Amino acid sequence: MLTLYIGNKNYSSWSLRPWLVMAHFGIPFKEQMIPLYTPEGTVSLRNVSPSGKVPLLKDDSLLVNDSLAICEYLAEQFPTLGLWPKDSAARAVARSVSAEMHSGFMSVRQHMPMNVKGSYPGEGLSNDVQKDIDRIVTIWQDCRQKHGAAGPWLFGQFSIADAMYAPIAFRFKTYGVKLPTEAETYLNTLLSHPSMQEWVADALKEPWTISAAEPYAQSSLAKDTADS
Amino acid sequence: MLTLYIGNKNYSSWSLRPWLVMAHFGIPFKEQMIPLYTPEGTVSLRNVSPSGKVPLLKDDSLLVNDSLAICEYLAEQFPTLGLWPKDSAARAVARSVSAEMHSGFMSVRQHMPMNVKGSYPGEGLSNDVQKDIDRIVTIWQDCRQKHGAAGPWLFGQFSIADAMYAPIAFRFKTYGVKLPTEAETYLNTLLSHPSMQEWVADALKEPWTISAAEPYAQSSLAKDTADS
Repeated sequence: MLTLYIGNKNYSSWSLRPWLVMAHFGIPFKEQMIPLYTPEGTVSLRNVSPSGKVPLLKDDSLLVNDSLAICEYLAEQFPTLGLWPKDSAARAVARSVSAEMHSGFMSVRQHMPMNVKGSYPGEGLSNDVQKDIDRIVTIWQDCRQKHGAAGPWLFGQFSIADAMYAPIAFRFKTYGVKLPTEAETYLNTLLSHPSMQEWVADALKEPWTISAAEPYAQSSLAKDTADS
Repeated sequence: MLTLYIGNKNYSSWSLRPWLVMAHFGIPFKEQMIPLYTPEGTVSLRNVSPSGKVPLLKDDSLLVNDSLAICEYLAEQFPTLGLWPKDSAARAVARSVSAEMHSGFMSVRQHMPMNVKGSYPGEGLSNDVQKDIDRIVTIWQDCRQKHGAAGPWLFGQFSIADAMYAPIAFRFKTYGVKLPTEAETYLNTLLSHPSMQEWVADALKEPWTISAAEPYAQSSLAKDTADS
């Protein structure tokens, strides 16, 4: 049995990616949630994860760290499920946009941390963040137009590339990012995926607050007080 | 014929990775160097690269951006060359440590930018940078001990994982990073690879200076002046 170690569902954007892939494709796994930045979570993480990070996939004695590496491992282990697009060129583009998300978009990540419960429309925006958003919109548009004819996902059928952009959907929702119509449609496709909704339901039940991922909690509180 | 667009060899750490893979495995390709942060380079980059970044692999009409995505594409196109380790578990670990490098080690990257010509021993070090260095040393040690018996590389034979860490070798050399003996041995294996030496020779001929990648040029100059 595969075990997937993840962080808090409210905050752990990297954990969501392989979790969503496994949930979508019906790959059986045991979920093990480690509450990040708590004393017990910090100890668990140190004991279980070579990199000290989540997500982590355990397959018997094999430990695979990192969202993208886990997805590649799953794609190899379940070759008939089509975790990547079947066409070689589409698959290369899917890996390209997945890798671009994996290593980039630092401004969005820093200023719009994933926070499923949170609602801070208008917060976090700057010129650099808008540049990241514009590039994401272009990627979604290009993939949908060139490769997305067979369905509502980036490459038609759901693939790892969609999972790589799933945390962005929560970010855009939390911070009320304005999008062109096509991008909004794809965003809603992501947000209404049953497994995404399950993730939200679980996040809502979590009691923990990670203050580093709540940069606007204070200013929002101040605003509420000023408004009252 | 494959065309690989790369940035300046002196500075472009991301370009080095797929270039080294193609050079090592003897994959024929045309190299197209775009001098970054020059007016003509900026125009070329905008015209050719969907993400506005290098490296970029062009295969007929297919454009593949990103160092890791290019390597995955090459691994698929040349399956008999063994770009990833042949053993499934070793390959999963190779992808895991490659992905960790792809998305992480921000402190080393920021404070020890790749600069093949440069020599700034002792510069750039801080607690956060040392943490990154320690983690890299642990990765090298773990891979060598568990998977490296068949040769001098991380997984015995040279693989994409070694190429992902090749820019780190130049960084460690430029900033005179002190390493344990085993890590020093692996560093020297990387630095003495004939293709790495070819890369250095080309970098030495480049006339461009990118000031953002030369944070210690000024302080070094000041020190020289003070010493004289």
